Amino acid sequence: MAEELTAWSPAGFHLRPLQATDYAKGYPQLLAALTQVGELPEATFQSTLQRLNSQPDTYLILVLEEAETGALAATGTLLVEQKFVHSAGKVGHVEDIVVSPDFERRGLGKKLIEVLERIARGRGCYKVILDCSEDVVGFYEKCGLVRKGAFMAQYFS
Amino acid sequence: MAEELTAWSPAGFHLRPLQATDYAKGYPQLLAALTQVGELPEATFQSTLQRLNSQPDTYLILVLEEAETGALAATGTLLVEQKFVHSAGKVGHVEDIVVSPDFERRGLGKKLIEVLERIARGRGCYKVILDCSEDVVGFYEKCGLVRKGAFMAQYFS
Repeated sequence: MAEELTAWSPAGFHLRPLQATDYAKGYPQLLAALTQVGELPEATFQSTLQRLNSQPDTYLILVLEEAETGALAATGTLLVEQKFVHSAGKVGHVEDIVVSPDFERRGLGKKLIEVLERIARGRGCYKVILDCSEDVVGFYEKCGLVRKGAFMAQYFS
Repeated sequence: MAEELTAWSPAGFHLRPLQATDYAKGYPQLLAALTQVGELPEATFQSTLQRLNSQPDTYLILVLEEAETGALAATGTLLVEQKFVHSAGKVGHVEDIVVSPDFERRGLGKKLIEVLERIARGRGCYKVILDCSEDVVGFYEKCGLVRKGAFMAQYFS
């Protein structure tokens, strides 16, 4: 895995799994470019990371780090769901794709999607899926995804 | 859990987690009303069920069984995703909702969605989400969900 990630890293960046030291490097601030992060004290981050790492077949969170500065430039998650349908197949859910505003327009988002798709395929997923708002449908179409339907939600108060 | 499921069962039905004996009761045939099931020999079903049951915080698959006949009338899955965003919150993914053609128009699908939403909320999810084709958006709106955006996919050959 580590070797493959190195091979897939765009020039000037390191692609690697999220690690404990990324809290201090600004991982919560990176996520804040996507959505509400809320309260994420370091203890919660670390216990959550341990919990996710204890299910390595289910969760993979990647980060792209700028090689020269060590700055966190982007992140993306692959959630692998085991199903009974499609011959007990697996589906890769692409979640929480974020590119730091400091690193936009360099193709890092598209690169991350490509890598997550490749990993999903390598793990035997028959498809990857993702939910997005209408304004980024065009971006994901450029990444090779096709609109299949509607994404519905119910929020709890 | 078992007590709650009993309390939430619609009249004439038992609501319970999927179990090993459901293969012989026609669980693959029930799924076939939704999508391609492909090859699902019993050994694969049982090993997959064990794998899902080994991650009880992540997967819950419910079935609705007709009390009088024992027939499988409907099924639905809740996949609970742990996130870092929203204060290290959880998201409930509602997956693979199927009602047998023999049991349509009795409100079983809506009932299943309500129960999965209630369970998701009880497990601390801040929202439930699901992907669907355009033709069933109206059904899920009646279940209290709201359209949020697009559902995208890439299939691997």
